[in-house]
Amino acid sequence: MNIFIINSGSSSIKYQLFKMPNTKPICTGLVERIGLENSIITHKLLKGDEEKIIRKTMDLVDHEAGLQQVAELLTDKEVGVIKDPREIEAVGHRVVHGGESFASTTMITKEVKAEIKKLFSLAPLHNPANYLGIEVAEKIFTLAKQIAVFDTAFHQTMPPVAYRYAIPQSFYSERGIRAYGFHGTSHKYVTAKTLQYLKNDKAKIITIHLGNGCSMTAVNAGVSIDTSMGFGPLNGLIMGTRSGDIDPSIIFHLVNQLGYSLDQVNNLLNKQSGMMGLTGFSDMRDILKGIAAGNEQAELAYDMYAYRIKKYIGSYAAVLNGLDAIVFTAGVGENDCAIRQMICAEMDFLGIKLDEEKNKVRSASLREINTDDSPVKILVVPTNEELEIVEQCFELIEKQPSVLS
Amino acid sequence: MNIFIINSGSSSIKYQLFKMPNTKPICTGLVERIGLENSIITHKLLKGDEEKIIRKTMDLVDHEAGLQQVAELLTDKEVGVIKDPREIEAVGHRVVHGGESFASTTMITKEVKAEIKKLFSLAPLHNPANYLGIEVAEKIFTLAKQIAVFDTAFHQTMPPVAYRYAIPQSFYSERGIRAYGFHGTSHKYVTAKTLQYLKNDKAKIITIHLGNGCSMTAVNAGVSIDTSMGFGPLNGLIMGTRSGDIDPSIIFHLVNQLGYSLDQVNNLLNKQSGMMGLTGFSDMRDILKGIAAGNEQAELAYDMYAYRIKKYIGSYAAVLNGLDAIVFTAGVGENDCAIRQMICAEMDFLGIKLDEEKNKVRSASLREINTDDSPVKILVVPTNEELEIVEQCFELIEKQPSVLS
Repeated sequence: MNIFIINSGSSSIKYQLFKMPNTKPICTGLVERIGLENSIITHKLLKGDEEKIIRKTMDLVDHEAGLQQVAELLTDKEVGVIKDPREIEAVGHRVVHGGESFASTTMITKEVKAEIKKLFSLAPLHNPANYLGIEVAEKIFTLAKQIAVFDTAFHQTMPPVAYRYAIPQSFYSERGIRAYGFHGTSHKYVTAKTLQYLKNDKAKIITIHLGNGCSMTAVNAGVSIDTSMGFGPLNGLIMGTRSGDIDPSIIFHLVNQLGYSLDQVNNLLNKQSGMMGLTGFSDMRDILKGIAAGNEQAELAYDMYAYRIKKYIGSYAAVLNGLDAIVFTAGVGENDCAIRQMICAEMDFLGIKLDEEKNKVRSASLREINTDDSPVKILVVPTNEELEIVEQCFELIEKQPSVLS
Repeated sequence: MNIFIINSGSSSIKYQLFKMPNTKPICTGLVERIGLENSIITHKLLKGDEEKIIRKTMDLVDHEAGLQQVAELLTDKEVGVIKDPREIEAVGHRVVHGGESFASTTMITKEVKAEIKKLFSLAPLHNPANYLGIEVAEKIFTLAKQIAVFDTAFHQTMPPVAYRYAIPQSFYSERGIRAYGFHGTSHKYVTAKTLQYLKNDKAKIITIHLGNGCSMTAVNAGVSIDTSMGFGPLNGLIMGTRSGDIDPSIIFHLVNQLGYSLDQVNNLLNKQSGMMGLTGFSDMRDILKGIAAGNEQAELAYDMYAYRIKKYIGSYAAVLNGLDAIVFTAGVGENDCAIRQMICAEMDFLGIKLDEEKNKVRSASLREINTDDSPVKILVVPTNEELEIVEQCFELIEKQPSVLS
């Protein structure tokens, strides 16, 4: 079954094609600079360990033109992998915000599209682009089932005590202001892998997704009960360019006392803060180089990054009232052994004891890096959001009663 | 030694007179509606268990007129407790914000006053009123030493990793944007009482101040290492009318998508949120009545209030890497056994085990309410900020070398 996965951004489309049940994509790609001059398509053909890259530059006026080009590459006589766009049986769309309407992966209907549209105001930077991806995919892959996989869905199990804010009730009931949480696909994927590894469906675990965006989730028996991102993806951990948790009164101070505009502050906290704001670099590798060179700002930023995570581990251990495992995932979580060490240092009160040697071993597989006598397991579990998306789509289709035509 | 304590607000002056080393005030009072018509003075004379209340209504145009009236009451032929304002040897001023300049109680000089003035922009609602209190006290109690006791001082021991925010470095170095923390006088007072009770100067404790404002502090060996209020007093726990922690992106959403002005949002989060926003009541007793009457909003708000505190306990236990005691104080913390029970429920993973019967006993004394086998002590320690202030003033004067005149 050919399943095509799309992550549609405001000026880009990221995609993968899977021949399920084979869980390795047969091609992947990225369309960039849509709507600008000199749009770029980078298309990769994957065959075993071989990789063939095709680059094209042209002007693509809109997402439809972009996806049309991708369809032509997929069906190209020389490099194509299918003969006709109609061979795509399903298109899986990453949709950032599912609000309270979508607690799981959902077959897209007119009603579902209307609902996604209603959520534009909650995710003005993402949902409109995701929606556009759906509309153009419907035009080009005319026979395919369209499926939406929501970043927020996994966290819809959170109880009100975790998702409500202490503001007047009507802001929740009338305006949908609550914590939604994001990175749900990743947290869900590593949760499943972890419970399988622990052979314990009831485990209390904390998943720590450290990529360019960062978030943590408290998971009880496979179910998200709290997460560090909130109403939007700004809250919680310190990220590449996002501040994470910050006293909201600073916003009033910046505007009222220091003369910034609210848009400047919004931009500041989302794009110029986090590790970037503290050090001038958003990439952990640059920051580690800075530390090696004796840069004190870099050292402090690294400490702060770890300190924030320690605090969330403690707070989730408290609300779980127990802890079986903490799980590191995503780019930084999987590869930066120094940050893992710093996070796990002096955490034995919570039962967390890192094996420093095991921690240093690099690997692309799930691995355990705690000492043998550590009451809490410390795991590194590589995430794979695309795989999670395609598997959810596949599962949804398999579950659907087949329609006789 | 007569020490007069002043808490000067924008339209009020709260005061106490102590004859140290006697730590019971001999009179206390409140001047309200300064600058408005029909200002009110409520003056209490305390003698043993007797209390005599004098109420006066008059127009007081400014703080000086207000304090002048208080001085007349203090020296009144019939009800006075001193003969002349010059018998006041020291005036202790509660000053909310000491910035990074003041890490302890400080004798007020010209330079100190200039420094307090510099901090106006960090605490625009409080420091100007506190400053005014100093100026008028200097005029009326001409021979007295003027002393400042800062709400932020106790937290000046926090390490950068706890007080810095993940925003560009210059906002800290040039603009002083960092976490300062408040309620320092109370956290310091109950910390001292707790360490004394535990007979352990090195104890790792968490002090939980639950009044109309609420905050928590992680204390290691008597030293504040982290606290829940931040740059201002809005952050952290859910309070009477303040939201506490909230995703800052909600502020941008309220302004950009829902059309609120930033001042409305500021007012919303500070004055109409917290327990008030969730239930319509800011007083815990009203909320408990609501719960008893089956009000679901009240129940949720109460749960949320406790849940937030649980999370902070966990996060501070993590950064302390240990926990000897948690300490409840202030109005709600000392008197609301139901909230203490909810906070301590299912916290045995952290070693917290409440004795439900001991918890229910009402008392004005320091008491232990954990089970005998609880690894972590749970204490109720009545706070006394005025006493802490007067004792700090007394200590400072005693330490000063006497000046021969």
